[in-house]
Order: sequence, then structure tokens, then C-alpha cells
Amino acid sequence: MLEFNDIVESYERIAPYIHKTPIFSSQVLNQWLGHNILFKAECLQKVGAFKARGGCNAVAKIAAGSVHAERIIAQSSGNHAQAVAWAAQRFNLPATIFMPENVSQVKAQATKAYGAEVVFKKDRKAIDDAVEAKAKKSGTVWIHPYNDERVIAGQGTVALEIFDQVNEVDAIVAPCGGGGLLSGSSIVSRHLSPSTKMIGVEPLEANDAAQSLRTGNIVSLPAPPTTLADGARTLSVGHLTFPYLQQLDSFFEASEKSIAYWTQWLTHLLKLTIEPTSAMAMFGVCEWLKVQQTQKTVVVILSGGNIDKPSRDKIWSTDNLSQPPSLHD
Amino acid sequence: MLEFNDIVESYERIAPYIHKTPIFSSQVLNQWLGHNILFKAECLQKVGAFKARGGCNAVAKIAAGSVHAERIIAQSSGNHAQAVAWAAQRFNLPATIFMPENVSQVKAQATKAYGAEVVFKKDRKAIDDAVEAKAKKSGTVWIHPYNDERVIAGQGTVALEIFDQVNEVDAIVAPCGGGGLLSGSSIVSRHLSPSTKMIGVEPLEANDAAQSLRTGNIVSLPAPPTTLADGARTLSVGHLTFPYLQQLDSFFEASEKSIAYWTQWLTHLLKLTIEPTSAMAMFGVCEWLKVQQTQKTVVVILSGGNIDKPSRDKIWSTDNLSQPPSLHD
Repeated sequence: MLEFNDIVESYERIAPYIHKTPIFSSQVLNQWLGHNILFKAECLQKVGAFKARGGCNAVAKIAAGSVHAERIIAQSSGNHAQAVAWAAQRFNLPATIFMPENVSQVKAQATKAYGAEVVFKKDRKAIDDAVEAKAKKSGTVWIHPYNDERVIAGQGTVALEIFDQVNEVDAIVAPCGGGGLLSGSSIVSRHLSPSTKMIGVEPLEANDAAQSLRTGNIVSLPAPPTTLADGARTLSVGHLTFPYLQQLDSFFEASEKSIAYWTQWLTHLLKLTIEPTSAMAMFGVCEWLKVQQTQKTVVVILSGGNIDKPSRDKIWSTDNLSQPPSLHD
Repeated sequence: MLEFNDIVESYERIAPYIHKTPIFSSQVLNQWLGHNILFKAECLQKVGAFKARGGCNAVAKIAAGSVHAERIIAQSSGNHAQAVAWAAQRFNLPATIFMPENVSQVKAQATKAYGAEVVFKKDRKAIDDAVEAKAKKSGTVWIHPYNDERVIAGQGTVALEIFDQVNEVDAIVAPCGGGGLLSGSSIVSRHLSPSTKMIGVEPLEANDAAQSLRTGNIVSLPAPPTTLADGARTLSVGHLTFPYLQQLDSFFEASEKSIAYWTQWLTHLLKLTIEPTSAMAMFGVCEWLKVQQTQKTVVVILSGGNIDKPSRDKIWSTDNLSQPPSLHD
């Protein structure tokens, strides 16, 4: 099991390469909701997502370690691809990223811009097979997007910064994909501030984690789910992350409507480019705040800012900005 | 004429209320363009635009001054409305903002959220008449969006921050609406760094300033122009700002296509919500860089982040992200 000190060591390892991202708030939003809501802007992180932390920590450990490493490999259609490509470049290690053929040009381009070799495969199965085959080659090191202690420890560094930047945090709310971000952050939060509530949010349409938490066993979705929150389309959480998720204080399932709603509002109020996966956390914030008796300080981890054209088009197809948000609906 | 010291005094006046906004850059953009392009994120300023600086300075001077002030008034369909409403609230002065009936609900709402009375009028003429009539009342003080020394001095504080945050600035590029931002910034730049080039950019479809610069006289557009850069829809520059604009080193006119193009790219690369008016500046950046012989450091003032749904829909109606930007097209 990872310990608090592992996160501190990870932070020392990656701090020279990553951004200490700022905290934002919206005066009018706090006025409307009656609470103090702060946003940790990981969308402004390197590669536009907190994934840079885990990717960097894993690559830095590999580069410094005794393992013979000639090439880093990873599979991803999302932010982990860019994170690993970027980190490998920083440590002068060649990287190969396996991506689906239908991945957006923008994401493939960015991954290539960080110097990685990109290999396209027709579907998830073909990608998994290719990665597994390649991982067996001597000198090739595979970095899993979340079921990897180096990655979890890296993601947890975001919480170290939060407790450095904010006093008296009543709750931290983050999206749940594979669970790496929530796991790493929980380790830090339990250590530095045991009274801080840790809250996860997942799309209702991709609720493998919620199902897993209800049944007590890791449930895997039978097929890739359709949700605006593309960062949470993982089929299942990992055996390394699940135990941390089981210790969360609350877990909420957000409808597609609420994901679109909050993506619009946060984009508008914070002037940040926010992924639907990040905005989704606000659903959990509101559900949790509705049952609180006193004014709370909540930190929302805005996990990333990489948004595809199809998602953007869907998000903005209706206008949600005509009525201000409220906890009394 | 305003002097450098007026800007310094303005900064002392407004610093407790405004954000010192951060500077951003995109590693891949700089790689693609081969220069060091930095972005001063005034979209993260109070009310989402640099206008908070000028509005705050004007209101603060009024609140502290010997003028009998019972009410602040302003007319605007854009960021100046919110800036004056916000600043008046901070200084406990009632404010009335005159807006067109067809202004977006979002902007009217935000202005009301800052405590201002909002009066809707059917068109620009009706608004101007109402403001002028109201301004004659004793105790009522009118704040013009740009043709006002207090406002110009406030806007110039953005350049003070730039020279504090960045060493050796080869050029500052900013959008031109009424010219307040470029005027105030020029005063600072000429004083602190005479070799820094000051560059303005205007929409080709709303090129009153470019026409004015060509003819040497202030040209007024016959009717409100149609452009994505809604912050630059002003019919003419002011007699206070024109002399500063005449001293700019370069001035460019951006096509609607280039405005949409750069709004997409900056939104994507910087993860910031950027107005088309701000992104427009990148057209000038590229035109200027194309004729430079050495690597340059350019600071782009991202003037604001308030974007309407119709503009957003137009901007994202085509996909500009499939090919990376380049200076060689």
C-alpha cells in the first residue's frame, strides 16, 4: 500500500517539471450557492490535465531506476497518452503510444508533438493486445493509466498542493475514471486533514465504480459507455484503486444533462476551458451541499481541459445559462 | 495628457481590488511558430475582462474625490457594463447601466448580480439619449468606456504588470476597440521599455481605427458592424485615445476567418475561455512575426473571456484544429 510519504517523494520528483496550478473561484457562483467553492485548475497543468503528474512520476522513477528501460509504452485515447509522451520527452526516453484509429486528430497531433511514436489500432481489443505483446519485450516499460502505484502517487500530489494553498478544506470533490486521482488524493487528505470529506463523482451512464461500490466487487462495464465525460469512460476501476474508492465519504452519479449544464456554467464563470469530466464534479458538490447545515469550503479538482469538437458541440447545443445555478431546485 | 505616473497612481488605487493576472504560454504553439509568445490572461480578471481595471480606477477616483457623486451611470452591452457595476458595488455607490433590449441574458444577469440597476432601451440611439439626459442630473457621474482619462489610466495598469512579470518584451499586441487598452499600455511601454513595439489589431469588418490611422482623422462607422470580435464593435475611437493609436508601431486588420481560427486554437492550447476579440490579436502577432529576422518575445493581452452563445456557435461551426498553426502558409 502507498503511504503519505510516497506522495511527498513523488512531489519532490516531479515538482521541477509540472505546474503548481492556481486555485480559482467565482464570486457570483459562491453568492448564488451560498458556499465557498474553490477550483484547483489542473486544466492548466502540463498537457492540460492532472495526468501529467502521474505520467511524470512514473517516467521519472523509470528513468532514475535500476530497471533497464529503452522505451516507454502506453495505451490511451485521452490525456494519459499526452502525459506519458510529454514526460518521456522530458526524460529523453522514446515512447510509443497506442491509440484508436478514430481518435481526434488534435489528440494524436499533440501526442506526436511531444515526440512520441503513435501507433493506431482499430479498436480497444487490438490496442490491448498490441500493448501486452510489446510490453513483453526487454527494455520496454508499460505505464498503465491508473492501476499503477507510481501513477497513483503522482496524481496524489494535486492534494498536497491543495492543502498548501487552502486552509480548512471541508471537502474535496473529484471525478472518477479509473480512480487514480481520488486514490492518490485520499492518501494525502486522510493524513493531513482527516476531517476533510473525500467525494467522488462518476457519470450515471458509465457507473462501473458506483456499481462496484454497491456490490463490494469490481464491476466491469460490458462495452465502452456513451457519456460526455470522456475521461470517465473506463470500463472498470483497478484493483489498486478500488480499496481507496471504498473509503470515500460520498459518491455521486451525474446525469448527462448535469454534465453539460456544469460544463457550460464553469466555462462561463471561471473563463477556463474545462472538460465535461471535470465539470461533472459540480453535480456532486451540489448534492453534498444540499444536505449541509453550515457554510462549507469545497475544493473541486478540475481534472483537465481537453475537449473534443463533438463533445463541445453537444455541450453547447442547448443554452443552460439563462437561469443562475441554485441549490434549491 | 496622461503620464506614466498617472498609471502608477492608478495601480496603487486599484491593486487591492483587481487580480494580478497570470502569464500563460503554450509549449507546442511556441514550437510550431518558433517564437516565445506569452499571454497575459485578463480573461481571468474580475468580471472576466481588463475593463475591470479602468472601471475600478474611475469609480475609486469618484468615490475618493471632491465631486458630489450619488450614482454612477454607464452604457454598454459588454464588459464595461459589468466592470462599472462591479466597481460601484465595491465602493458602495449605486449604479445604473443602460443596455440594449437584445443584450444576452447572461450579461444582463451578471450586471444585476453586481448590484447594478439595469435599464433596457431599444437601440443605441435610445441608450445614448437616456445616458446623456441622466448624466445632467446633479450627483450623477457618467463613466465612458474608453474616452475617459481615468479609464485609460486604469487599463494601462495591465502593462505595468506585464513589465513586472516578463523580461525583455519585444512586442505587446492588443485588440483595438475604442483604444483605451492600447493607449494606457502605450504610455507604460514607452516609459519603461521604449524599444518594445506596440501593436494593435482590429477586425477588418470593423476597421474604423485603421481607416482613421490611414486618413489621419477619426473615422466613424455609419452603422454597428458585424464581427465575431464583439469587443471591437465600437463605431469610432475617442479623441483621447486616437493620438496614442497614431503612435503605434504596427496595426493589423483581422478577417473573420482568422478571428474564428485563433479563438479555437487559443481556447484549445491555453485552456482558457477567450473572447474572439482577444484571439484576434494572434493575427497581428503572426503578421508581425513573419517579417522578423530573429526569435522574438511577444506578449498578447487576452482582453477578456466573455463570449455569447451565438458567437460561440459561429466560432466552433467549422474545425480549425486539424492542422497546426504555422507562419509559413
